[in-house]
Amino acid sequence: MTDAINRKRLEESMDALGRVGETPKGGLTRLALSDEDRRGRDLLVEWMRGAGLRVTVDRMGNIFGERAGRAALPPVLMGSHADSVPTGGKYDGQLGVLCALEAIRSLNDHGIRTRHPVGMAIFTNEEGARFQPAMIGSGVMAGKIPLEDAYNARDRDGIRLGDELERIGYLGSEPCVPRPLRAYLELHIEQGPILEEEGVPIGVVEGIVAISWSRLTLHGTQDHAGPTPMRIRHDALVAAAEVVRRVREIPAELGGDLVSTVGRLDVTPNIPNAIPGRVTMSIDLRDPDDARLDRALRLLDRAVEAAARTEGVTYELEHYWRVPRTPFAPDVVGAVESAARSLGVRSRRILSGAGHDAQYMAAICPTGMIFVPSRAGRSHCEEEFTPMDDVEHGANALFRAACSLAERAE
Amino acid sequence: MTDAINRKRLEESMDALGRVGETPKGGLTRLALSDEDRRGRDLLVEWMRGAGLRVTVDRMGNIFGERAGRAALPPVLMGSHADSVPTGGKYDGQLGVLCALEAIRSLNDHGIRTRHPVGMAIFTNEEGARFQPAMIGSGVMAGKIPLEDAYNARDRDGIRLGDELERIGYLGSEPCVPRPLRAYLELHIEQGPILEEEGVPIGVVEGIVAISWSRLTLHGTQDHAGPTPMRIRHDALVAAAEVVRRVREIPAELGGDLVSTVGRLDVTPNIPNAIPGRVTMSIDLRDPDDARLDRALRLLDRAVEAAARTEGVTYELEHYWRVPRTPFAPDVVGAVESAARSLGVRSRRILSGAGHDAQYMAAICPTGMIFVPSRAGRSHCEEEFTPMDDVEHGANALFRAACSLAERAE
Repeated sequence: MTDAINRKRLEESMDALGRVGETPKGGLTRLALSDEDRRGRDLLVEWMRGAGLRVTVDRMGNIFGERAGRAALPPVLMGSHADSVPTGGKYDGQLGVLCALEAIRSLNDHGIRTRHPVGMAIFTNEEGARFQPAMIGSGVMAGKIPLEDAYNARDRDGIRLGDELERIGYLGSEPCVPRPLRAYLELHIEQGPILEEEGVPIGVVEGIVAISWSRLTLHGTQDHAGPTPMRIRHDALVAAAEVVRRVREIPAELGGDLVSTVGRLDVTPNIPNAIPGRVTMSIDLRDPDDARLDRALRLLDRAVEAAARTEGVTYELEHYWRVPRTPFAPDVVGAVESAARSLGVRSRRILSGAGHDAQYMAAICPTGMIFVPSRAGRSHCEEEFTPMDDVEHGANALFRAACSLAERAE
Repeated sequence: MTDAINRKRLEESMDALGRVGETPKGGLTRLALSDEDRRGRDLLVEWMRGAGLRVTVDRMGNIFGERAGRAALPPVLMGSHADSVPTGGKYDGQLGVLCALEAIRSLNDHGIRTRHPVGMAIFTNEEGARFQPAMIGSGVMAGKIPLEDAYNARDRDGIRLGDELERIGYLGSEPCVPRPLRAYLELHIEQGPILEEEGVPIGVVEGIVAISWSRLTLHGTQDHAGPTPMRIRHDALVAAAEVVRRVREIPAELGGDLVSTVGRLDVTPNIPNAIPGRVTMSIDLRDPDDARLDRALRLLDRAVEAAARTEGVTYELEHYWRVPRTPFAPDVVGAVESAARSLGVRSRRILSGAGHDAQYMAAICPTGMIFVPSRAGRSHCEEEFTPMDDVEHGANALFRAACSLAERAE
């Protein structure tokens, strides 16, 4: 096979979609179900229809487009998400969606017919930046999150996900349930430093690490910062700071590839002259090994208990979201590896440290992912960048792997 | 002198004003220059006019009311502020304003004439919760803060103080400058535990501790919480947590009555799955001894430098507000002490750990304060409470001290 995707067209699509929600520093703020997300979705749907796809929207706002195959067989689906974190970059999510679209446009260009239909998907609220948990659109589709729970997720202004879906016009009518699929394939930036460090343009993703999200609320005694002697203080932020310190230490204690992050922390009343009465914070733990992640959670439990006791504050700690380690399907992983080999570029097997919609999709169909390098391993920031040569290699690998899985018919 | 204030009327005024900005839990949210502040001001101005006072508003929105004296002499001014912190209480500020009003109403009730005029003042944005720095209205009046700087102070939504003054109708025409005053007297809750612990209803305030406010911004590397190995992280929140820990330790290291607080801390982007790229935080340090406060600031400088270096982040640290220890005028302190003695209730000399408008007023006229007990030392919280018996003693002490300083004329 010598057919290839159209690099110039892909680059133009990246530029055009990247302007929807662009930040002054060239990053992206396109929070799930915001007006910017709606404009991005509208543009993608227009392009999908222009590529001859039959577009449907399900009850979670997930968007699907399908190109018919020779036979009435389960489709090969490619996809990712179009929402971003605040002041995020122009590659996370968006690149996977646009490479999927480019692969379909290239099938059209070259007049390629496939036995299986080939489709693309855009999943709702993958980031979990506005509504928690993350990957909520694919999670509902895979039957891992009840639809009503997803609708009732609220952003920090108390706005319901279900209401926002309706407001932006993406509360579709298709049931959001597992459907028969030949395979799900997702191209994504690595978001880590390995591919760049090793000079390898394509990562053949074998699976995704186990992920746990916890929520901690510490209740201290709100009081005046001046006349309140140190001896009678119960400062929620002092306890929170100790938890941040301990969370940082856990990976060194347990070894391996465990990572731990306190990404969100909110102080009440959050003014200079009041002792913080309440702090809420998130704890994100990830490990390739589910058993080590369990050990990390037990260390977290103990650290929180000790920090609260020392400062004399009370707390609630909730481990509210957990995704076990997800291995990908050998035939899909193999198809990605063969596609990279056929392109004559280097590839390596790699594990994803980030959650992706592919993690839930793996529960309902044979699934795989393709990684392209992230400059300096940076992502979830405005500096996100992947060289266009690497993007082109990745898009071609996706195109070829999809052709192979969908079985080229002529 | 046997004349006394009207406890029932004072309690009714406290109830009525306390409903303006009341929280569901019985506290108060009446941020400076908000709609609630405007409604509180309108009610107070109505009451002041009802008590026969000539009301004026200066260019900082400070409200003054004056009752004529026998002679054209500098007035005795009583006052405090009517703004609150978020989810604050119904005593901080409001009580001093209402006791001043009650003292003037009582002068009228008893037909008391004084040589000096007697007036009351309500100062703008004492709390510093919405606009920084605190005590901005009295600070401009005392010539310590330029009027333009005060107008350009912005709240966290970027709204200018000057614009809000105009919007709520309290951008007055009187110059905000020092004026000749016989004395300034402020009744306030202690906000600390001492009076309650010792069972003393009246604190004769000798002065206010030195106060320093600093602002720290830490710049780390925003990145994805999953695929970013611990070894390449520069987490602004990890550095911030270490600063919180060190700030808490400084008082134990230096001894004495130093207090230290990180009250405000904001994380960017503040989502569960991004390594914090930026943290801004406040550091509040107070000490009766200016030299020890200087030593604390040097320890803070070193702690921030070390925390930033360890985590590999950059920072800006600004010590942007400082008020030196303020001793009050011996004749005003003596008048308060005599008033308490004449009431037959216990009093004790005390130092204020909180900043008050009296701190700036002390720069332009003989100044003193009266403290009443705070239950459990609590303030800047909804649980703020002072028993009505103590309020009555305090109001009577204010009334008598004002009469004495204004020189009763018949």
